[in-house]
Amino acid sequence: MVGAENVLVDAPARLARATGLSYLDLVRRRRPTVDFPVPDAVVLPADPDEVQAVLDVCVRHDVGVVPFGGGTSVVGGVAALRGEKTSVIALDLVRLDALVSVDAESRIAVLQAGVRGPEAERLLAGHGLTLGHVPQSFERATIGGFAATRSAGQASSGYGRFEDMVTGVRLATPRGPWKLGVAPASAAGPDLRQLAIGSEGTLGVITEVALRVRPAPPVRRYEGYALPGWTAGAEAVRDLAQHHALADVTRLSDVDETEVSLALNAGVKTAALRRYLAARGVRRPCFLIVGWEGTAHDVALRRRETARRLKASGAVRVGKALGESWRHGRFAGPRQRDTLLDMGICVETLETAAYWSNVDELRDDVRAALTAALGKAIIMCHISHAYETGASLYFTVLTARDEADPAGQWQRAKAAACEAIAGLGTISHHHAVGVDHAPYLSAEIGALGVEVLRAAKSAVDPTGILNPGKLV
Amino acid sequence: MVGAENVLVDAPARLARATGLSYLDLVRRRRPTVDFPVPDAVVLPADPDEVQAVLDVCVRHDVGVVPFGGGTSVVGGVAALRGEKTSVIALDLVRLDALVSVDAESRIAVLQAGVRGPEAERLLAGHGLTLGHVPQSFERATIGGFAATRSAGQASSGYGRFEDMVTGVRLATPRGPWKLGVAPASAAGPDLRQLAIGSEGTLGVITEVALRVRPAPPVRRYEGYALPGWTAGAEAVRDLAQHHALADVTRLSDVDETEVSLALNAGVKTAALRRYLAARGVRRPCFLIVGWEGTAHDVALRRRETARRLKASGAVRVGKALGESWRHGRFAGPRQRDTLLDMGICVETLETAAYWSNVDELRDDVRAALTAALGKAIIMCHISHAYETGASLYFTVLTARDEADPAGQWQRAKAAACEAIAGLGTISHHHAVGVDHAPYLSAEIGALGVEVLRAAKSAVDPTGILNPGKLV
Repeated sequence: MVGAENVLVDAPARLARATGLSYLDLVRRRRPTVDFPVPDAVVLPADPDEVQAVLDVCVRHDVGVVPFGGGTSVVGGVAALRGEKTSVIALDLVRLDALVSVDAESRIAVLQAGVRGPEAERLLAGHGLTLGHVPQSFERATIGGFAATRSAGQASSGYGRFEDMVTGVRLATPRGPWKLGVAPASAAGPDLRQLAIGSEGTLGVITEVALRVRPAPPVRRYEGYALPGWTAGAEAVRDLAQHHALADVTRLSDVDETEVSLALNAGVKTAALRRYLAARGVRRPCFLIVGWEGTAHDVALRRRETARRLKASGAVRVGKALGESWRHGRFAGPRQRDTLLDMGICVETLETAAYWSNVDELRDDVRAALTAALGKAIIMCHISHAYETGASLYFTVLTARDEADPAGQWQRAKAAACEAIAGLGTISHHHAVGVDHAPYLSAEIGALGVEVLRAAKSAVDPTGILNPGKLV
Repeated sequence: MVGAENVLVDAPARLARATGLSYLDLVRRRRPTVDFPVPDAVVLPADPDEVQAVLDVCVRHDVGVVPFGGGTSVVGGVAALRGEKTSVIALDLVRLDALVSVDAESRIAVLQAGVRGPEAERLLAGHGLTLGHVPQSFERATIGGFAATRSAGQASSGYGRFEDMVTGVRLATPRGPWKLGVAPASAAGPDLRQLAIGSEGTLGVITEVALRVRPAPPVRRYEGYALPGWTAGAEAVRDLAQHHALADVTRLSDVDETEVSLALNAGVKTAALRRYLAARGVRRPCFLIVGWEGTAHDVALRRRETARRLKASGAVRVGKALGESWRHGRFAGPRQRDTLLDMGICVETLETAAYWSNVDELRDDVRAALTAALGKAIIMCHISHAYETGASLYFTVLTARDEADPAGQWQRAKAAACEAIAGLGTISHHHAVGVDHAPYLSAEIGALGVEVLRAAKSAVDPTGILNPGKLV
């Protein structure tokens, strides 16, 4: 039904859809033998109807289905687990690559699930529009993946998290098609869109997403500030968030991340900058990147407000170069990982979010847990998403790789970090649950929450073919 | 377990918790005989633990439970239906009246479910805080009810809908306590808070709600504008919403509502005002109420932006009196209904929301449906909640009461309006589903959506004691 050329059974095609991009995935893929699960076939439907038809066949033959978009999961979300099924396919959605419709008056665009970040922006730019969703996975990840994982982009303070952008969602399920979202807001019972978003392929295959879009911004202005230490920095970001003065991008690095950034010379003259900051009382700087996007009028107006508040918080302006340097390098991180791996370095990230009164303790606890587990390590942290009630914390960890057991080394560290997170924050702010975070989910949403998710799954997927072994 | 004095079986107590406040409820209550279901008893637990204990007993004895807060439902949400149960109680939460905790740093306050609107503001004012949730039911409705129904207040453009304020929720369920919400945002699977919010007592009894709060605003500034007709008015509101220039309160009346407001002399000198507007080209005015709340600096800044955009949209400023007059009279509507009923008038409201490209058609269709069903009627409409992608529409209908069959008269009109809404908008923007909207839910969320809700309910309420006959 999808055409023979769209069913791939060769080893390279199957291997390419067997894992995501976590450190554990990279380590696994470097081993001489394939000791991780690989899908039995890759199926590439062309449109939502073909997705539904493939699901119907998989129900009939009791075949597991792993929806596959950009393959950028860092939590095992696309692992080819088969659960109790004897066969499993990777359902690659890359051919669902269309901009379906644009409602300029309502500022809504419907995009198919397989559209990648840059292509979404290119398609929308043809209408003078932007989505503004720019996570670090932007270059490869897809619209369907953003929705399935509750993604949050680097400009989430301005454009919102992905779930804030979704007005509607269309899914294929083993029980048939399912469409949600008829109004910007509703009191017609629970918001089931928020059940579909974050369902990670377990409640259906997302085939189309209706998204709130905005005019492409004529002006983008990025710049850097330095705050005297983490506490002052976090206070300054909280002040912005609680006074509606956040820039569209607001990203605060802690002292360790700032030092690494200075050591790598992030587009600024480091020694001169250190002297400049020291003269203004900032001896252990925390860099803050702020960026605004919009019309010249709006950017000027909002920038003035942010600047006014930052000044009152003791921030020292570093200038445009720092902001632009961050903006141009912001997708480099994932690309550098293979090089670091070649150098014998274990490099990975993890993230959480908490209410403001827990943020400092959570950062301390996660750092302590990682240090205890790894010994000597560089642990960097930043806030990249701020809310009135709290903020995200994003950790980057570098340590010498344990060549005898590289996977175990990281698994122990990650488990220690997850234990530290439970009770103080969420197990994931924007990476999702997948396989890696599943053991911690019931601590967060309760055993009853897990049962509710399982009940919802049974209703739409009674034989359990959808993404076996993920989420719950 | 709650004390004998907190179990009421006298007729007045039971009757007082037998209905909400819809027109149909008022009509029913005026009949000489009680021909609507009444709970067998009213139970008033003191705290979340007692709520849980009462539920446990009701599970054991298979007794239906209707959670009862302010009793302001206008969709039959608190009707004492017993479904397949032989007994049903009204679980009145009014004794859960405490401010549990305040986290000033995170701007979060935990309130018990039975706290009414004014009391919530009074409790928070003691900490210099406000919730800012002011629906028309404010004076009687409760925190738990706001959450259970996905309420939206008149200042929703500034403070957000109630679900935007909720950071956490605690429920008592037949399967035990359930607590949700550990961070401002999360990618740890679907957002189950958004399943609990809007569940209308069918998935558990909400006992506590953690809410994002804000500093009590030192300045409140309300004023009025007039737009030349509905289309120009809706365009002006859309322009504000899509340029982040909405006032905290933004409420646009159509020509009919404006004429009634002028006829009732809404605090302004009517004839002089008509001349003033006509001289500026506004012959069929639509009033727009805009209100800002915050610091003097913020109100001035935001007011300037709103005014700038409104001027460009052709709005004529009417002044402070109109805004203040609306603000002071805004809870009067529900209170006037009994007087109108005494005068032989059928008066009721209904509401929906749609994407901008559907707003005009939806308004026309609902008006046409109501007119066809009722004959001669005054039908007024306003937008009271605006979003980037769409807006709410709120209709007030007045017509001569059919004394032979007042309930049937309205039921037929309401059914016609609901049919007109289905396909273009949501069956409810902020009144919820209850009994009255239940027949239209599956058209909106799909038969599969209804099954998912039923499955979730079975997981937490396997014997179906919670609010029988509501929502699904």
